[in-house]
Amino acid sequence: MEHLYAKRVQKSGNSDLAELFKLSEQPDIISFAGGFPDPRWFLDEIEEIAHQVLTDKKDIALQYGPVPGFTHVREFVAGRMQEQQMKVTMENILITSGSLQGLDLICRVFLDPGDLIVLEAPTYLGAITTFVSYEAEIASIPADEDGLQVDQLEIFLKNTLRKPKFIYVIPTFQNPTGRVMSLERRKKLIELANEYRVPVIDDNAYGELRFSGEEIPSIKALDTENMVIYLGTFSKIFSPGVRLGWIAADPKLIEKLILFKQGSDQTSSSLSQLLAYEAGKRGLIEKQIAVTCAGLKQKRDLTISALQKYFKDRATWNEPEGGYYVWVQLKDQVDTLKRLTPAVINHKVAYVAGSSFYPDRRGENCLRVCYSLAKESDIDEGIRRLAQAFVNA
Amino acid sequence: MEHLYAKRVQKSGNSDLAELFKLSEQPDIISFAGGFPDPRWFLDEIEEIAHQVLTDKKDIALQYGPVPGFTHVREFVAGRMQEQQMKVTMENILITSGSLQGLDLICRVFLDPGDLIVLEAPTYLGAITTFVSYEAEIASIPADEDGLQVDQLEIFLKNTLRKPKFIYVIPTFQNPTGRVMSLERRKKLIELANEYRVPVIDDNAYGELRFSGEEIPSIKALDTENMVIYLGTFSKIFSPGVRLGWIAADPKLIEKLILFKQGSDQTSSSLSQLLAYEAGKRGLIEKQIAVTCAGLKQKRDLTISALQKYFKDRATWNEPEGGYYVWVQLKDQVDTLKRLTPAVINHKVAYVAGSSFYPDRRGENCLRVCYSLAKESDIDEGIRRLAQAFVNA
Repeated sequence: MEHLYAKRVQKSGNSDLAELFKLSEQPDIISFAGGFPDPRWFLDEIEEIAHQVLTDKKDIALQYGPVPGFTHVREFVAGRMQEQQMKVTMENILITSGSLQGLDLICRVFLDPGDLIVLEAPTYLGAITTFVSYEAEIASIPADEDGLQVDQLEIFLKNTLRKPKFIYVIPTFQNPTGRVMSLERRKKLIELANEYRVPVIDDNAYGELRFSGEEIPSIKALDTENMVIYLGTFSKIFSPGVRLGWIAADPKLIEKLILFKQGSDQTSSSLSQLLAYEAGKRGLIEKQIAVTCAGLKQKRDLTISALQKYFKDRATWNEPEGGYYVWVQLKDQVDTLKRLTPAVINHKVAYVAGSSFYPDRRGENCLRVCYSLAKESDIDEGIRRLAQAFVNA
Repeated sequence: MEHLYAKRVQKSGNSDLAELFKLSEQPDIISFAGGFPDPRWFLDEIEEIAHQVLTDKKDIALQYGPVPGFTHVREFVAGRMQEQQMKVTMENILITSGSLQGLDLICRVFLDPGDLIVLEAPTYLGAITTFVSYEAEIASIPADEDGLQVDQLEIFLKNTLRKPKFIYVIPTFQNPTGRVMSLERRKKLIELANEYRVPVIDDNAYGELRFSGEEIPSIKALDTENMVIYLGTFSKIFSPGVRLGWIAADPKLIEKLILFKQGSDQTSSSLSQLLAYEAGKRGLIEKQIAVTCAGLKQKRDLTISALQKYFKDRATWNEPEGGYYVWVQLKDQVDTLKRLTPAVINHKVAYVAGSSFYPDRRGENCLRVCYSLAKESDIDEGIRRLAQAFVNA
């Protein structure tokens, strides 16, 4: 049937991420690859919540729900955002099946084939996959220790002949770098969005996972003219297995997104929505965040120590204040993508190569180290193996 | 931001279905609208299953799963299909977030804007919404009591200058008509698919809900040259609230579908997958089907009796042997869509207008009566109200 396929099939590459996850599933591998939470952090109370939901609200939990999500769930989500200084109500919220579905729906509303979008590079691999599947043309603006280089963005916006449909950023504890965009740059980004009338997608998957340093307002909280579309997820603050996220945006846009949600998977799991809501009501989401942040901090410390031990003169890295990731840049020219399969097979360690996070495959001597999943007792040995994998580089 | 929207937004209509569901949610309305199961049929044992899954397999249930679905879930799904005489293995299966997502992913692999697809009319409203969102051109082939008119399809395929990308059918207990495509026509459809090399999408959402008459092989079971793509769902045999379905197709196609699944919602809920699997292993899916079929039969009988009582000389209808729906054709010219809002507001009864199931909005004197959700004690009164709503027609 291949001759019947749509054009977007040719443009879509292979399933890097899926292949990688398969490889790194083997039990003797120490994996710094997939951005997974440590399952030992999952709260036991979730069983109790499921019991209550399936006893008291079985009729609702197992039934179809409304397309935009349950009203009380949307109110709950809006309430949490309000506490984080974002001006939203239930009308701004669409519940999605994970935040990647949120991004997918946004693409469906905004992108015709060949449309231009702007992102910071490096960026989330899953987002690149989605943009490519919509046949978008991607303009990459470089990021540094303070996040997206807004001055470069400004030059780009000033000079581009084609108006971009949106700018995609992960401002806090960025995937893959773990970096935070500075407040000054956030404000400048909003200014540029307003001036050039380009929407900004604020993917805040990791924003609540801060374990040190000071809070910084989200891009959405700084939004002055309703130019920011916010992506949230329960994956990192509750459970990825329930597949639940949300979009916060102007109600007029939400209305359009609902249309495509309906034609996409109709509605997100009722059971998942009730579980997340009940967990929230009992304060368990805050507890899950606290447990997760404590665990992440410990692992970040172990990872940084191990990097100092094994990579001292051979690489540079940042010290993240939250989230899952640290970004390691090797000083020598090493193609970390080419080294990946031997690293997994010969050295029993997994990571994601830097070039996977660039639409144009730059960043080849970089790698993303995800410290959230590996056991504490494995981290030192894992980083040692990583160093081994890059010996003679 | 409207000026930034993609072309597909203009082509997508309003959210008929969502609006309708909102209307018919009011407690004093007797609803024959949404294709929902009766929540009283949901098995109590699901709570016990959730307890076990979240006690023994919490780590897996709350974590990300593999993109195509868990291996044991795919094997389980393939095993059930094998029992129904379909030649598939785990390699043929992709787990999706409901069968509508399956259709959405198929569209993503096959459809460029303007591509031609063929469907039987009337057909599933959700499918029409999805096809329109991919900017497909739709050719409707009429259906009668024996399903899709394959002779008309043959004439169409012979004469069309543009090759269609696929033919979409719901052969068993069709939505919205409740009709079954005859065996003879099924065989002819396969012949045509083979001859013209056009894939057939066999949406079998209701096939297992037979409460009278004899089994008939699915289109997929009759497939001789791997031209059939099968859509299955747990919504009607287990629970719609878990949002779980599957695609069965050639492994090469599955590989492409996985790419877009990954960029769409990454993976279906792990928790939902484990619940459905555990239910299956304990025989609870078969029990759920039995309970559902017994309930449906009773409601079908009540509905047909009431139609005879209140619509005797005013309409024709079929007597479904399974599924959720009966298709009522009024003898007088009545625009059932225009009558819908007054029916809900003045007569407190809801249905879906016939024209909603035709891409070209024909069928205006027809309506879909879904008997699965209304209480047994409400059915007679509901059909009486329906008749009232069409008085002076």
